[in-house]
Amino acid sequence: MIYTVIDILGTIAFAISGVLVAMDKRLDVFGVFIIAFVTAVGGGTLRDVLVGSTPVGWMTQPNYIVIILITVIFSILFVGRLKYFRKSLFLFDTIGIGLYTMIGIQKGLDAGLLPIMCIALGTMTACFGGVIRDILCNEIPVIFRKEIYATVCILGGGIYFVMLQFPMNSVIAYVTAILCIIIMRLLAVIFKISLPNIYPKAK
Amino acid sequence: MIYTVIDILGTIAFAISGVLVAMDKRLDVFGVFIIAFVTAVGGGTLRDVLVGSTPVGWMTQPNYIVIILITVIFSILFVGRLKYFRKSLFLFDTIGIGLYTMIGIQKGLDAGLLPIMCIALGTMTACFGGVIRDILCNEIPVIFRKEIYATVCILGGGIYFVMLQFPMNSVIAYVTAILCIIIMRLLAVIFKISLPNIYPKAK
Amino acid sequence: MIYTVIDILGTIAFAISGVLVAMDKRLDVFGVFIIAFVTAVGGGTLRDVLVGSTPVGWMTQPNYIVIILITVIFSILFVGRLKYFRKSLFLFDTIGIGLYTMIGIQKGLDAGLLPIMCIALGTMTACFGGVIRDILCNEIPVIFRKEIYATVCILGGGIYFVMLQFPMNSVIAYVTAILCIIIMRLLAVIFKISLPNIYPKAK
Repeated sequence: MIYTVIDILGTIAFAISGVLVAMDKRLDVFGVFIIAFVTAVGGGTLRDVLVGSTPVGWMTQPNYIVIILITVIFSILFVGRLKYFRKSLFLFDTIGIGLYTMIGIQKGLDAGLLPIMCIALGTMTACFGGVIRDILCNEIPVIFRKEIYATVCILGGGIYFVMLQFPMNSVIAYVTAILCIIIMRLLAVIFKISLPNIYPKAK
Repeated sequence: MIYTVIDILGTIAFAISGVLVAMDKRLDVFGVFIIAFVTAVGGGTLRDVLVGSTPVGWMTQPNYIVIILITVIFSILFVGRLKYFRKSLFLFDTIGIGLYTMIGIQKGLDAGLLPIMCIALGTMTACFGGVIRDILCNEIPVIFRKEIYATVCILGGGIYFVMLQFPMNSVIAYVTAILCIIIMRLLAVIFKISLPNIYPKAK
Repeated sequence: MIYTVIDILGTIAFAISGVLVAMDKRLDVFGVFIIAFVTAVGGGTLRDVLVGSTPVGWMTQPNYIVIILITVIFSILFVGRLKYFRKSLFLFDTIGIGLYTMIGIQKGLDAGLLPIMCIALGTMTACFGGVIRDILCNEIPVIFRKEIYATVCILGGGIYFVMLQFPMNSVIAYVTAILCIIIMRLLAVIFKISLPNIYPKAK
């Protein structure tokens, strides 16, 4: 139940981030919807395709398409007001990546994959919707360029597998990992932590 | 039989649209062929991958690769004359999206998916070859920006499922839906109908 | 055994080519790793997805992820020195595409596909990691624009299937095809052979 609520809030936050990027590129209504849709479900779709879990998730669960459609309509109507919800959206987005990382990891475990592959799948679920969004909008994916985003998913996944080594209720480990991802991302944004720079000083 | 003819004409029209975009970017012969190929079969390939119908369609049907190869050779040789066939190409393209939409819908029905997902698959079959073409050529997909294209596929798919509610021969519904898509697209182009503008007036 | 060594050298060469393109775009550490990863395994992944061989190859073989990770770390640390290894890297890359083409062809034969499809899969395995790399870095794929690259894979695959028509040990045919690809690519680069120009003289 709580997972369902988080899932819906995460989907809405992801879809809105798609709407904003798409409207910035002045796409038409159909383009805005497609970008919102791939942002919200693209990561999970890529994961399902690579694992071979087909038909992919959203095809058998029509609620996603409906939630995203409603989100797109409201976002277009009230796009001017979206900035007042910036903090809420950031929070939903952050909670969303926590949950999606763990959903992806669970899918990997179900497929009998190694922990490192499960973490890769979790990170993909949480982050690659945004990658596909940026590719479709002709931009280099933002998560390859700035801000700690994927890294917290990887760390959170690592924490989960470390916890599983101890005698611990797996639900507790699951929820703790989600909370760790959320907290790490909040701290990274608040303290402006970024990945170490690997380039010589800008000219 | 008639479907086969339409399929071939549609494949040729899609491949030529790929050749034109690729030559506009001055790609080499291999690049032009690949772009023509993904334009023609990319939508159906994406559909097959998402549904899990693998090996994907064109791998077991070598006629597509041959038709596209011949189309590419002739298009490159006679690229200067292609403009005289602009209207025929537009017509083949339009007939093609009608057929491909319904082929995609049929695939969805075979996989036991809901009508809304079948329509999504139909639209994907008809339109996403062009999306992959534009991405590979480093452009924002044209169907996200202008002209009613995907929308007529969605409407045509909707009409098909409405017709299925009535006691009606399913072949008649199938053909009627294709004709509706073709007519709607022709009307949209003739009367320059486009999706409602969601942006404030251009500065 | 010799195949394993070639595979590792090829993976390293492909990953480094990814690192160089990614650093040229000034991506962050995570972005550089992802680009290196898709360059190295992207072609095989696409092949596995289209054939329906899932979970895709790298998910069940953790050695790739480890080799690529180490390659990325060393490449970033010693990026200034990479130019001294330019010739070795070119050689590994060339040997790599020879091997990967044949691995792809073998996968196609295992799936019972026609020779022409096997050659397509082989070319995809060898070349499409670079295509995905370029798309993620917002460039038109370099193999669509210049240099004979995919063409030698196609020719090498053709030579393999011609040899299979004769009473010949299939391992010998396999190795000969790899050598043909390597030699053709070396000759193409040494003698600056490129695909025939299909455009009128540049203005």
